[in-house]
Amino acid sequence: MQKDNNTTNLTRLLTSSASAWTSSRSQSCEPGQDDQIVLASRVRLARNLAGQPFPAHLSPEIGQKVVASLFLALRHLEMANNGKYILLKMKDLTPLQRSLLLEKHLISRELTQALENQAVAIREDEAVALMLNEEDHLRIQCLLPGFQPEEAWRIASEIDDLLEEKLDYAFDPELGYLTTCPSNAGTGLRASVLLHLPGIILTKQQDMLLAQLNKVGMTARGFYGEGTKALGHIFQVSNQVTLGLSEDNILQGLKSVVSRLLEHERQARSRLLQEKGAVIEDQVWRSYGIMSQARLLPGKEFMERLSYLRLGLDLGIIEGIDRSLLNRLLIEAQPAFLQQAKGQELDQLERDKERAKLANIRIGKTQREV
Amino acid sequence: MQKDNNTTNLTRLLTSSASAWTSSRSQSCEPGQDDQIVLASRVRLARNLAGQPFPAHLSPEIGQKVVASLFLALRHLEMANNGKYILLKMKDLTPLQRSLLLEKHLISRELTQALENQAVAIREDEAVALMLNEEDHLRIQCLLPGFQPEEAWRIASEIDDLLEEKLDYAFDPELGYLTTCPSNAGTGLRASVLLHLPGIILTKQQDMLLAQLNKVGMTARGFYGEGTKALGHIFQVSNQVTLGLSEDNILQGLKSVVSRLLEHERQARSRLLQEKGAVIEDQVWRSYGIMSQARLLPGKEFMERLSYLRLGLDLGIIEGIDRSLLNRLLIEAQPAFLQQAKGQELDQLERDKERAKLANIRIGKTQREV
Repeated sequence: MQKDNNTTNLTRLLTSSASAWTSSRSQSCEPGQDDQIVLASRVRLARNLAGQPFPAHLSPEIGQKVVASLFLALRHLEMANNGKYILLKMKDLTPLQRSLLLEKHLISRELTQALENQAVAIREDEAVALMLNEEDHLRIQCLLPGFQPEEAWRIASEIDDLLEEKLDYAFDPELGYLTTCPSNAGTGLRASVLLHLPGIILTKQQDMLLAQLNKVGMTARGFYGEGTKALGHIFQVSNQVTLGLSEDNILQGLKSVVSRLLEHERQARSRLLQEKGAVIEDQVWRSYGIMSQARLLPGKEFMERLSYLRLGLDLGIIEGIDRSLLNRLLIEAQPAFLQQAKGQELDQLERDKERAKLANIRIGKTQREV
Repeated sequence: MQKDNNTTNLTRLLTSSASAWTSSRSQSCEPGQDDQIVLASRVRLARNLAGQPFPAHLSPEIGQKVVASLFLALRHLEMANNGKYILLKMKDLTPLQRSLLLEKHLISRELTQALENQAVAIREDEAVALMLNEEDHLRIQCLLPGFQPEEAWRIASEIDDLLEEKLDYAFDPELGYLTTCPSNAGTGLRASVLLHLPGIILTKQQDMLLAQLNKVGMTARGFYGEGTKALGHIFQVSNQVTLGLSEDNILQGLKSVVSRLLEHERQARSRLLQEKGAVIEDQVWRSYGIMSQARLLPGKEFMERLSYLRLGLDLGIIEGIDRSLLNRLLIEAQPAFLQQAKGQELDQLERDKERAKLANIRIGKTQREV
C-alpha cells in the first residue's frame, strides 16, 4: 500500500478500461482457439477470521478490527514481493466510482453497497482483488485473460498462503474453511470462466446445454453475474458445489465442462458456416457498418454487434480489429464508464448516443469527439 | 427510327440505369424543395385509331395494321425533329429485356405480356415512350425528373398533335377521345407524380392522407404502380377521374393536391426532427453503415435504407451522395437489373447478395466486384 502512489493509481484504475483480463492472449485468427472463446478465467477464495462474527453480524468495532488485521496482512503481501496494492474503502468512493470498479469486474455487486468497513485492495496489475467484509471477511479474487483457471488458482493460492502466515482463518478439520454461506464452505473456491458462445446461442442449444451444466454441479450466468442475461452471447460458467470437493476436483471439473462446451461451440460454428454462411458473413459486416456509423446504440444491441465482430474475427470473416480492444469495449460501453468519460450524468438516450460515438471512434475509426 | 443505331441504343437502353427521370433537377440541400420530394412527373395519353377494334378484340391482321399506321406516324415525328426513336417489338425481346424496360418505367406491366403486335417506341432521351397495342392502340408517356407535370404534358401534347396529323384518332365530340376503359375516356390523360414521403409515413399519417386523396378523385399507388406497396416510402399519386374534366383541370387538380402533400410532408419532417431528431439522425447514418457494409440486402430493406439516405440528404444530416445516383439505385437494385449486371439468373439469396454488393460499391465506395 504505497500511499504516495495512490492518487495516480486510483486515477488509472477508475479511468482506464484496460485491466488484467481485458488484454488478449491470442491475436491469431485460427478459428476456435480456446483463448478466443474463453475471454477470461477467474478464481475466488472465501475466507473468514477465526473467532469473529461473520460480516452480516458484524459490529462496527469488530468490523474495524477485521479490516485492521487484513491491512497488516496486506503489507506482508507487499513485503513478499507479491506486487503493490491500492486500498480503497468503499465509503470513501462515490457511487459512480464503485460502479466503475464493478464494471471492470474488480469488485462484486455486494461491495457497491458500501457498508461500514467494506473495502477492496486491488493489485497494481488489476489481476488480483481482495474484497474485505463482503459476504465473508475476505474474498481473494484472481482474474486473468483467456483459459487459464489453474494459473488463476496458483496466484490466488499463493496469496492465500502468504495471508495465512499472518491471519488466523476460521477453519474446521472436517468441514474445511468456514464461510457465511454453507455453499461456499470447504475449499471456499469458486472457479469460473467467461465464455463467448454465439454458435451455441445462434443454433438455439443454450437451454439444453445449461440444463446439462446444472446436472454436473456447474452453473451459468450472464456477463455481470447472477440475474444478468447472456448479453452479447457471453456466459459465466462456474462451479456451484464446493463442499466435499478438493480444489483440484473443482478445477478439473470446470476444465472438463469447459472443454466440452468449447467442442460444442466449435461444432455449432461449423454448422452455422455451412448452413448459414451468407447470413453470418452479412451479420458480421453489418455489425461493422452499424458500429461505425450508428448514432444511437442501446446496450443490448451494442453487445450483440460486438459479439458478431468477435465471431467474425474468430472465423476469419473480418480482420484488423484488436481483440483486446473488443474486451475493453465491453467495459467502456457500460453506463458508469460512459458517464465518467463524458464527465456528467447521462440519461438513457444520452448513454445510447455516447455508446454510439464510442463505437464510431473505436470500430469505425471515425473522427468524432466523445 | 434509325435502324443503324438501334443496336447501340438498345444496349444502352437495356444496360444503363440512367433514364430521363433519374437525372436530378436539384443537387441542393435546402430542406424540403419540391424537386427533392417529387422524384418524377409523368403524363400519359390514351389514344385509339378510329374504325378499328380496341386491342382486347384485335385480330392479328388488324393489330398489324394498327402497328403499321403508327410506324408511319412515328417517322413523321422524327421528321418533325421531335427526336430519334428506337422501336422495339415486345415479341422480339427476352423476358429479361422486357423486365428491364419495366423496371426503368419505360413500359407498362401490360406490355411485358408481349402479346402479338405489342411494341414500344422509346425516344433516345428516354423521356418519351409510345406504347402500341397496350390497353389502347397508343399510349403516349412522358416521364420527367422532379415536379414538372405541365412540362410533361406540354411534351406529350406536342407529340400527340404531331401524330394526329397522320392518324385518325377515335374521337367523339361529346365524349372526347374514346378508350378501351371508360375511365380513361375524355382527355385520355393520366398525370402522376412519384413522391418520396418518409415524413408522412414515419408520423403514420398515410392512411388519413390517402383517404383524403380518394375524396378528390386522386389515387395513390406504390413505386411500380397498382398493387405494389409503398416501398422505400415512395408513392405514385395520379388522377383517377378524366371524363368531364379538361386537361388543365386535371393538371391543376394534381398540382394542388401535390402542393398540399408537400406541405404535409414538410411539416411532418419538421415534427420528426423536433421530436425524434436523434432517432432520425441515427437511422440515416445507420443506413449509410448498412448500405456500405451489409452482405445481404433484401429489396424491401434496400428501399427503406435508400429512403433514409435521401431523407438525410434533404435534411442536411449527411452529404456527398449524388441524388441522381439514388434514383438510379432504385432501378439498379431491381431483380432484372441485378441479373443483367451479373449476366445470369439469380435466386432470391443471390439477388440479396448482388444488391448488397451494389450498395457497398455505390454508397460505401468499397472496392468490390459486382
